[in-house]
Amino acid sequence: MLEDSMDTERTTKSIPELIAKKRDGGELTDAEIEFSISRILDGAMQDCQIGALLMAIWQQGMTTKETKILTQAMVASGETLQWPSTWQQVVVDKHSTGGVGDKVSLPLVPALVACGCKVPMISGRGLSHTGGTLDKLEAIPGFRTDLNREQILHILNYVGGCIMGQTTQLVPADRITYAIRNVTSTVDSIPLITASILSKKLSEGLSALVLDVKYGKAAFCKTLKIAQELAEMMVRTGAHLGLKIVAVLSQMDHPIGLCIGNALEVMETLECLHGEGPEDLNDLVVTLGGLLLHNVGKAGSAKEGSEIIQKSLKNGSALACFEAMLEAQGVMPDVAHRLCQQKDFPGTLGQAPAHTDILADAAGFVQDIDAVALAHLLLKMGAGRTDIGAVIDHKVGVQILVPVGQPINKGQPWIRVFHSQAKLTDEQMSATHASVTIASSKVQTSKRITHIIRPEDLNLDEA
Amino acid sequence: MLEDSMDTERTTKSIPELIAKKRDGGELTDAEIEFSISRILDGAMQDCQIGALLMAIWQQGMTTKETKILTQAMVASGETLQWPSTWQQVVVDKHSTGGVGDKVSLPLVPALVACGCKVPMISGRGLSHTGGTLDKLEAIPGFRTDLNREQILHILNYVGGCIMGQTTQLVPADRITYAIRNVTSTVDSIPLITASILSKKLSEGLSALVLDVKYGKAAFCKTLKIAQELAEMMVRTGAHLGLKIVAVLSQMDHPIGLCIGNALEVMETLECLHGEGPEDLNDLVVTLGGLLLHNVGKAGSAKEGSEIIQKSLKNGSALACFEAMLEAQGVMPDVAHRLCQQKDFPGTLGQAPAHTDILADAAGFVQDIDAVALAHLLLKMGAGRTDIGAVIDHKVGVQILVPVGQPINKGQPWIRVFHSQAKLTDEQMSATHASVTIASSKVQTSKRITHIIRPEDLNLDEA
Repeated sequence: MLEDSMDTERTTKSIPELIAKKRDGGELTDAEIEFSISRILDGAMQDCQIGALLMAIWQQGMTTKETKILTQAMVASGETLQWPSTWQQVVVDKHSTGGVGDKVSLPLVPALVACGCKVPMISGRGLSHTGGTLDKLEAIPGFRTDLNREQILHILNYVGGCIMGQTTQLVPADRITYAIRNVTSTVDSIPLITASILSKKLSEGLSALVLDVKYGKAAFCKTLKIAQELAEMMVRTGAHLGLKIVAVLSQMDHPIGLCIGNALEVMETLECLHGEGPEDLNDLVVTLGGLLLHNVGKAGSAKEGSEIIQKSLKNGSALACFEAMLEAQGVMPDVAHRLCQQKDFPGTLGQAPAHTDILADAAGFVQDIDAVALAHLLLKMGAGRTDIGAVIDHKVGVQILVPVGQPINKGQPWIRVFHSQAKLTDEQMSATHASVTIASSKVQTSKRITHIIRPEDLNLDEA
Repeated sequence: MLEDSMDTERTTKSIPELIAKKRDGGELTDAEIEFSISRILDGAMQDCQIGALLMAIWQQGMTTKETKILTQAMVASGETLQWPSTWQQVVVDKHSTGGVGDKVSLPLVPALVACGCKVPMISGRGLSHTGGTLDKLEAIPGFRTDLNREQILHILNYVGGCIMGQTTQLVPADRITYAIRNVTSTVDSIPLITASILSKKLSEGLSALVLDVKYGKAAFCKTLKIAQELAEMMVRTGAHLGLKIVAVLSQMDHPIGLCIGNALEVMETLECLHGEGPEDLNDLVVTLGGLLLHNVGKAGSAKEGSEIIQKSLKNGSALACFEAMLEAQGVMPDVAHRLCQQKDFPGTLGQAPAHTDILADAAGFVQDIDAVALAHLLLKMGAGRTDIGAVIDHKVGVQILVPVGQPINKGQPWIRVFHSQAKLTDEQMSATHASVTIASSKVQTSKRITHIIRPEDLNLDEA
C-alpha cells in the first residue's frame, strides 16, 4: 500500500505497523515490544489489535531475544514482590505445565520450606478436567487463596511458604493478554507461554525456579519434541533474565499417583507427606525439590538435594510445615490437625455420598490408564469447570485401586468412582471401563522424569 | 490441549475452535463461515476474536469455495438493492483497486448511462494520498453522496446512474470487519479483499461488473503476479456467484491523466466528457465501458462496446448524463450547467489562492513521474486525509504540464502545484523536483491496460 512507502521517514511505528511487522515474520525491537505492552496497559491498543498481534505471534513465533524482552516488559507492567536481603538466595518456586492428577505442588512447597527455602507460590485454577492447585487446596474447609502483600510477607516470615492466587497488582499485562489468548486460540505458542509463566514467576522475586514440562497424551505438549522446545525456550529465557533455572521433561500418559479429584488429591498429598505416597508422586517431589536445593546451594548435587527432600517427607518436618501453612491460610487449627496428624479425611474433607467400584473384565496386567478419558468423565461429573467461576464439586473423583504395571484378576475392583449422583449412568460406567488397558503379560513401567534441561546444556548466545 | 480431544463428540464448533481451525490452515465449512458472520453481527464474537480470525485468514488464506461462501454470507448480512425486472440485464458497475489520479468512475458512469445502462455505483472516500471518488465529487458545490433507497431508485429511473456512499443497511458485516481490518494490518488479504469488494457490489443488485486491478509502484498490488492472483480470485468468485464479471490489469507507476487533486480531477473529467481528455484516461474509460456493454449484450464485442462508449464521449451524450446526475445529486442547475457546458472551472470549483511552476533542471524526455511521491506531497498539503473524518482541501493539487514520453527543455515548466499556503517550502520544492525522471533519449510509453481476465480463461471447478 501507499502508506508503506512513507514509513521510512518515521522512527516510531504505529500499532498497525507493529502488527504488520510481526505478521510478516519480522523481529520486533526492544522498543517496539515495550511500546506494545504499554499500549495494551493504557488501553490504546484495541482488543481487536491485541487479538491480531497474538495471532501473528502464534503464526510467526518470536526469537529468544524478543521473548526475553516481552517477559521483562510484562514483569515491569506491575508490582513485584520484594524480600528481605537475607532471604534472597532461598526464594524458590516450581511451575508445571499441568497434568491429570498433578498435585506435586501440595507436598513440594512444605518440603522445600522444611529444607530452609522460602516459597511464595502463585498458582492457578483449572479450566476443564479436574481443577488446578488452588481448587484442590480449597477442598480443605477454610483455606484462603486471596492473600495480600502484607499477608504473604507475614506467612513467608513465620511459616516459610504459601500457595496463593494471582493478584491484580502482579503482571497486569499477562492478565489482559491471557484472557484474550484464552478466547482467540493463541494459548499454545511457545514464546507466549514462556513470557506468561516466567513473568508471573519473576514477579514473585525468585532466585531459583524449577519447571516440570509434561509431554504425552494427557499433557499440553503432545510430543517430546514440543516439550523440549518449550523447556529450552523457558530455560534459555529465564537464564538470560538472571534466574537459576532448570527444567525436567516428564511423561504424562496415565494419571500421576492413584487419585484424581480435588479432595482425593489432598488425601494423597497427606499420604506423601507421611512418607507413604505413591512412588511416581514421591519421585517427582524429591527430584524437583532436589534440583532447587542444589541450585540455591543447600545441597552439593541434585541427588543430595533429593535425599534431603526425601528425609523431610519421612521425618514429619514437611508435614508440620504443611499444617502450619494451612493454619496461616485460614484453616482452623483443629481441622488442620485432624487432617494432617490424624488423617481424618471424611471428618475434614467430607465424603462423596456414593461410590461405585468398576471391576476388571479380564485378567492380566494393567498396561495403561487413559488419563484424558478419566479427566473428561470427572469434568462432566462436576470435579472441574468449563467456565471461569463455575462451582466445583470437590468430593467427586476416582481412586485407582490397581496401578499401571500391577497384575489384576477378572472381576477384581480396579477403580473406585466417587460421585454425588445416586448411581453412575451406563455411559459413565462404560467410559470408565474403556479407560483401562489390560495386557496378558507383564508390562514394563517407566520413570515419569525422562530428561533434565539445564542452562549449561544450551547455547545461550542468542539473546 | 485436553479440550481438543473432546471435540470429536460435538458437531458444532465454538468460536475459539473455528479460529483454531483457520489458524492451522483448515478449510472452513459453509456452516462455519455463516456461523462466524452471524456471530460478528450479533456481537457474540468479541473484537479480539475477530482480529485473531482475520489475522489467521491473512496468514492461511481461503479457498475459492470459502471466499464464495464468505461473500454470500456478507451480502446476506444486510439489505440488497432491488430493481424493476426490465432493468435486470443492464444494471452494471465498475470497481478499481485505486491509484493516484484515478478519476475513471466520474466519466465512466455517465458514459455507461448514455449507452443505456443503469449504474448504482457505491464508492468510497480516500484514506491517505489524494481522496477517493466521493471526495473528488464533493469538490463540486452542493454534491450529495448520502442517498437513501428511494432516492437511488428515483435517480436510476430518471437519470440512469449515481455515485454514492455506502449506507449502513448494505453489507453491515463488511462495515464491521473492514473497520477492524484497517487497524489490524489485515487489509491486504486476497480472499478478504475479494469478499469485501464483491459483497458490496452484489448488494447493489448488479448483473455485470468490470474490475480494474492496478499494479505497480503506486498501486495496492506492487507486482503483476499479485494483481493477477487477486483478479483471478475475484473473477472466479464473482462468476460462481452468477455475476457477468471481467477484470483488467492496468499499470500504475505514474499518475493517471495529468491532474491530481480533487478539483483538478473534476476539471480533467470534464475534458474527458468533452472528448478532449488525456489519452490514458480516455482509454481506461472506453475499455472498461466496452467490456461491460459487451457483457450485457449491448455490443457484439468488447471492441464494439469501446467504440460505442467513445462515441458517447464525443457527441456530448455522456456529458449530458453527467450534468443530469449532478443535478439529481444536489448540485444547483446553474452550477452544473456552468461546469459542464461552459467549463467555468474557477467559477464553479473555486481556485487555489496560489500556484508555483516547477521548472525542469535538464533537457531530454520525461521518462517517469513518481505518483507515490506526488501523492505524499499532496497529502501533506491537505489534498487527502490520514484520519477518517478529516477535512480535505479540494483545491490543492498538481497539474502535469509535460507528460511521460514528451520532450522537455531545461528551465521549461513541467508541473504546476496549486497550494493554499503563500509559497512552497524548500522541502516541497525539492520533493516535487525529485518526482520526475528525465532521460536523455526518447522513451517508449506503454499502454495502461496490459491484461484482460475473463471467467472462460480460468478453471472454475474449484468452488
